[in-house]
Amino acid sequence: MTTAAQSNPFAIPATMRAWVLDDPGQLRLTEKPVPQPGAAEVLVRIDAIAFCDGDIRIITRGPPALIEGGLPFNKDFTPGHEYMGTVVKLGAGVDEYTIGDRVAVEVHFGCGRCERCRAGMYTSCLNYGMNYGTHNKGHRANGFTTDGGFADYAVNNVNTLVHVPDGIGDEEATLIVTAGTAMYALDTLGGLIAGQSLAVTGPGAIGLLSVAVGKALGAQPVILTGTRDSRLELGKKLGADHLVNVKTENPVEAVKRITRGKGVHYVVECSGNPNGLNDGMDMVMRGGRICLVGFANEPVSVDVAKLVRNHISVFGIRGEGRSATHRAAALVAQRRFDAKLIHTHTFKMEDVPMAFKYSRERIDGAIKVVVKIRET
Amino acid sequence: MTTAAQSNPFAIPATMRAWVLDDPGQLRLTEKPVPQPGAAEVLVRIDAIAFCDGDIRIITRGPPALIEGGLPFNKDFTPGHEYMGTVVKLGAGVDEYTIGDRVAVEVHFGCGRCERCRAGMYTSCLNYGMNYGTHNKGHRANGFTTDGGFADYAVNNVNTLVHVPDGIGDEEATLIVTAGTAMYALDTLGGLIAGQSLAVTGPGAIGLLSVAVGKALGAQPVILTGTRDSRLELGKKLGADHLVNVKTENPVEAVKRITRGKGVHYVVECSGNPNGLNDGMDMVMRGGRICLVGFANEPVSVDVAKLVRNHISVFGIRGEGRSATHRAAALVAQRRFDAKLIHTHTFKMEDVPMAFKYSRERIDGAIKVVVKIRET
Amino acid sequence: MTTAAQSNPFAIPATMRAWVLDDPGQLRLTEKPVPQPGAAEVLVRIDAIAFCDGDIRIITRGPPALIEGGLPFNKDFTPGHEYMGTVVKLGAGVDEYTIGDRVAVEVHFGCGRCERCRAGMYTSCLNYGMNYGTHNKGHRANGFTTDGGFADYAVNNVNTLVHVPDGIGDEEATLIVTAGTAMYALDTLGGLIAGQSLAVTGPGAIGLLSVAVGKALGAQPVILTGTRDSRLELGKKLGADHLVNVKTENPVEAVKRITRGKGVHYVVECSGNPNGLNDGMDMVMRGGRICLVGFANEPVSVDVAKLVRNHISVFGIRGEGRSATHRAAALVAQRRFDAKLIHTHTFKMEDVPMAFKYSRERIDGAIKVVVKIRET
Amino acid sequence: MTTAAQSNPFAIPATMRAWVLDDPGQLRLTEKPVPQPGAAEVLVRIDAIAFCDGDIRIITRGPPALIEGGLPFNKDFTPGHEYMGTVVKLGAGVDEYTIGDRVAVEVHFGCGRCERCRAGMYTSCLNYGMNYGTHNKGHRANGFTTDGGFADYAVNNVNTLVHVPDGIGDEEATLIVTAGTAMYALDTLGGLIAGQSLAVTGPGAIGLLSVAVGKALGAQPVILTGTRDSRLELGKKLGADHLVNVKTENPVEAVKRITRGKGVHYVVECSGNPNGLNDGMDMVMRGGRICLVGFANEPVSVDVAKLVRNHISVFGIRGEGRSATHRAAALVAQRRFDAKLIHTHTFKMEDVPMAFKYSRERIDGAIKVVVKIRET
Repeated sequence: MTTAAQSNPFAIPATMRAWVLDDPGQLRLTEKPVPQPGAAEVLVRIDAIAFCDGDIRIITRGPPALIEGGLPFNKDFTPGHEYMGTVVKLGAGVDEYTIGDRVAVEVHFGCGRCERCRAGMYTSCLNYGMNYGTHNKGHRANGFTTDGGFADYAVNNVNTLVHVPDGIGDEEATLIVTAGTAMYALDTLGGLIAGQSLAVTGPGAIGLLSVAVGKALGAQPVILTGTRDSRLELGKKLGADHLVNVKTENPVEAVKRITRGKGVHYVVECSGNPNGLNDGMDMVMRGGRICLVGFANEPVSVDVAKLVRNHISVFGIRGEGRSATHRAAALVAQRRFDAKLIHTHTFKMEDVPMAFKYSRERIDGAIKVVVKIRET
Repeated sequence: MTTAAQSNPFAIPATMRAWVLDDPGQLRLTEKPVPQPGAAEVLVRIDAIAFCDGDIRIITRGPPALIEGGLPFNKDFTPGHEYMGTVVKLGAGVDEYTIGDRVAVEVHFGCGRCERCRAGMYTSCLNYGMNYGTHNKGHRANGFTTDGGFADYAVNNVNTLVHVPDGIGDEEATLIVTAGTAMYALDTLGGLIAGQSLAVTGPGAIGLLSVAVGKALGAQPVILTGTRDSRLELGKKLGADHLVNVKTENPVEAVKRITRGKGVHYVVECSGNPNGLNDGMDMVMRGGRICLVGFANEPVSVDVAKLVRNHISVFGIRGEGRSATHRAAALVAQRRFDAKLIHTHTFKMEDVPMAFKYSRERIDGAIKVVVKIRET
Repeated sequence: MTTAAQSNPFAIPATMRAWVLDDPGQLRLTEKPVPQPGAAEVLVRIDAIAFCDGDIRIITRGPPALIEGGLPFNKDFTPGHEYMGTVVKLGAGVDEYTIGDRVAVEVHFGCGRCERCRAGMYTSCLNYGMNYGTHNKGHRANGFTTDGGFADYAVNNVNTLVHVPDGIGDEEATLIVTAGTAMYALDTLGGLIAGQSLAVTGPGAIGLLSVAVGKALGAQPVILTGTRDSRLELGKKLGADHLVNVKTENPVEAVKRITRGKGVHYVVECSGNPNGLNDGMDMVMRGGRICLVGFANEPVSVDVAKLVRNHISVFGIRGEGRSATHRAAALVAQRRFDAKLIHTHTFKMEDVPMAFKYSRERIDGAIKVVVKIRET
Repeated sequence: MTTAAQSNPFAIPATMRAWVLDDPGQLRLTEKPVPQPGAAEVLVRIDAIAFCDGDIRIITRGPPALIEGGLPFNKDFTPGHEYMGTVVKLGAGVDEYTIGDRVAVEVHFGCGRCERCRAGMYTSCLNYGMNYGTHNKGHRANGFTTDGGFADYAVNNVNTLVHVPDGIGDEEATLIVTAGTAMYALDTLGGLIAGQSLAVTGPGAIGLLSVAVGKALGAQPVILTGTRDSRLELGKKLGADHLVNVKTENPVEAVKRITRGKGVHYVVECSGNPNGLNDGMDMVMRGGRICLVGFANEPVSVDVAKLVRNHISVFGIRGEGRSATHRAAALVAQRRFDAKLIHTHTFKMEDVPMAFKYSRERIDGAIKVVVKIRET
């Protein structure tokens, strides 16, 4: 077993490169001290990181706590949460990981003491963002409320780590947390997915991996809706049985056609389209369930009585709870789907702003844009 | 054990009085044959029946199947589902009930063969309304899709019966099914209610009994919101710890004030106010759950992203599934609350139209308006 | 849509061949009337049927109801429940299946009216065996309490049918219900199987398919224990990551070795060895779960306090509830594993006693012995 | 809000009185430093503490870790976990409690990082006992693996505290954690207790409070079995509907008689009698559930196949998970039952050995023996 006292083959510098938020939409490369892992934490040398829609919101609008508090950009915050790397230093009491381990990460480290955390719902921690000042409850949401991964190093609690399976490359490993969110969405819908019909709305990264995980768990049929044929085709490669381009067919009618009028058991809404809930309500059969993953940008008119009339359950989720990332990693390890398919572009550490531009504007069909922090 | 073959002290006539739907809002008293119980069914002599909001919708707008199918009122349909009475005849194979048993009723008899029924979700039966013609799947929703209780007799499957506890009068017994819906709402929220905070929005009959059942199960605090002080005061007698008149205080702010900023664990939305879901989303803490019971009459603008951001679950329910009526009857038998408090008016069989008017227009503070089919 | 009224390409004779129980261990071929499907039932022309350990118990000891009631063999009962065939006649109200459909079957048709059935637990029906005489509640357990499939025809309620996926042969289709039991065992353990460690004890048919289904759902690692290397090797082909021959290594120690001392999350006990529960308790980690599928033939000394000390849950199951057979069929349809591997022998209708002998005595490495009722 | 920096009305000495384990069965009064609360911890001045069967095991046989490791008594360990007291000092980051708050305690503080803790199952922490040395994971089981409450002061993590409701005396407050275990047992059985039949075997403190909590949640009927009429009578006062003295009637037959042959839905086994599981299996109806709370002292012959045949689930539990103590405290606050009934004797701090003797030998009908650490 490796302990902090063993000889460490990794030389850890005192300072590191880190991108930080500047004015809205602006990222600036700076120098920061390398953080030190505390008890139950490790220092991760970041090898690769992907952009997520959440990053785009943060970079353009500021971190969640700032948004809610109305404060300006803090000028020193490092975003980025879909990263992977190598454990290079262990904090006190860590024996779950060994120096040299390749790890992917989860976002949420719950406070461990609120009602939600005590019930295992650490992505719903009631002390979200409480990791500063006199009310420090220890909560961390890496890249959201604490420094993230567009940097050479980051500190992670062991609860936010998962081993990268052997044979999985750095780029693909950045997608494990995305697959974890997809897994959590399906868990939330009840988990007994085999042989059940599933509609995934929105072929973004989470939507595509919801198709992949859903099919890996045996969902049948898996229907994917979206606006771009190129992405829908990727969905087919990842396991979708039916593709619906909403520009050419009404998605609700398509689901009814494919299911011979019955509707689907489950909907995972990943489009963030304000009408996603409305469409979902019309896609599911009576007693059906909808998981909302995408963030709708604006309110929308909803016929709430439909939920009552058809006994529909709706689950908003955030993050990747219930250790879903570990279970997702197991599917990746077993090669149940090829997550690499959604990785479209790779940039270097110094090109983060360009990578951001590709990701935000979906240039050249960009889905997952990965930054290799460390060239290998 | 009593069987159909035993001598029967109840003389059953060939025909009976029954109110039927006429034009919208019109009820007409007519004569019908007394129905015959089939296998697993009994004939109930109806002793008392209460009006429910669902009845008002049906009487003014037609039965659900008709509404969806666009058909006219059928002129022969008897509404009414909150009834109780006496078992006077047993169909084949019935030994769960004995002639002379006093029974209250549930609405839903599922087809028993669709996916939902097989999973125990009989109030979400996929063959809802399929009890006629070549596609008869045997589903019954008494007073919704099959004849109900504004009549001298009705047929009920044994699955839709529950024994009236000793010492409970006819009027109170009509409320057992209402308490069953309240129980089902709380079940749906997870069932571990003791010591959890609960807001009930809308002090109608189901809302008031949600307060009563929630408090009986140990919820703390129980907050009731509404527009009428008289009803709120009833809520207090049934167990509410805090009353909020939404005409004088914003209900969301009140819930935050009462819970010292934390919000509640659970909301049961019974007002049918289109904004009920919006208020509920702002009342619950992160990770909270909302059960929608009331039917909102019109669409409303909803900020769907809030469900995602705060990891909120929303459960639309219909009816009183999971045998909740039996569990509610047990609480009534144990005198855990005084359901009689919400019974405000009593009418005779011939005065059903007047009872309907009182119930619909809430004349004289009417909450539960009961019709005594049989004078005792 | 096909109805009973359509012209039927299948000529149905008045009588049929059927094997019936004679004295213990004796089967006799006789002639019986072809049964008629009632409401919600179909007539299945049986094409193939497999022997199950349950059949062996029934043939040697009598049907369950007889065993409990102490009655002699009834001389007219036809056993057999792992059959498949072709729908040749529809009872009233059936539109879920069409004449000509190939179907596999489940065992249990619940009464639909007891507490368990109402809750969706139809394999725990409280009216098990109540399908005769004045207390007929309609329950059927095909091949257990009502006539089964060692005959040319059998009646099945639509609830006990599942479509045979395209391209699946008759022999393999008889194994769908076995896979359904394996699926139900895993459902009962919680359903979130991906990435969780699973030990299956006993490489009989259900054990081997528990390996297959568990791996299909992503369990990792899957450990199979048993006494015969030949069967363990089959387990490997079906997805087991580790094989333990209990003749050469203590299975508890092997599980601890493989899991580096941690123990497994889940155990599915299929050996029927009296010590199966004891071993399972020592194999699971704290908070682990054990599903008992095998029937132990005799009592055994158990250190019950271990269940308390290690917070272990134990689930006895019978049959294939929660529509698990449908979900299992979906995995078969998706070719997630090759169930044919456990089919070892095929006999003709007239050779049922020989097939029984092979199955009971495991002659020539017999696992699943299939009888082709109808030669194709 | 109170913080550690506020002026503290409580003078905290440097040392304190503490009872420690000596040789088996021996307790010795000594002096220890008053411990210091760390982050997320508080210092509790202990006001009262009750003896539990677990204490008796520890005092006679040593703490669990020692028992398993075969080590001698450690001579410096302070047992006792059913205590209550007053918060007198706050560790860093604590604002959930204020100096002067009266608190009762739970036993288990999970490591927060193992799979079980992450899933909310902190009483099944995989790092149980790991709170010393290089593998310190921070787990604490107060009075089991870390110093407990037979002392003037103890440190508690905020997760192991619950507010004492207003108006509840010190002695009664020591019983809140016992009621928490009873609540957790019922939670584990599914939580929907109202109107369900419940047998509690063994009228010890947990058994009696299982009766009380079960009845408070609406169980009907509640049957209590035991050997002493005096304790059974207490059970009646706490809500039991039926009492069975197993010396005069076979408890299984009694349960069948009371339930008219049906058996009960749920059994909570609190007797620790080796046959408790066997009796429970015969008491529950098909599909029933048994929660094992009592520790059987020796193995017993069990007919495991019954669990399979009757689809029975068995749940071993330890401690009071799922924040059950908070929910139990809410019932105490609402005066749903009179926990004081099971408090039989009170001793002074210096008389702990005598209190231990009363508790172990059940002298003078002792049930809960309370030591007032501080005289008021």
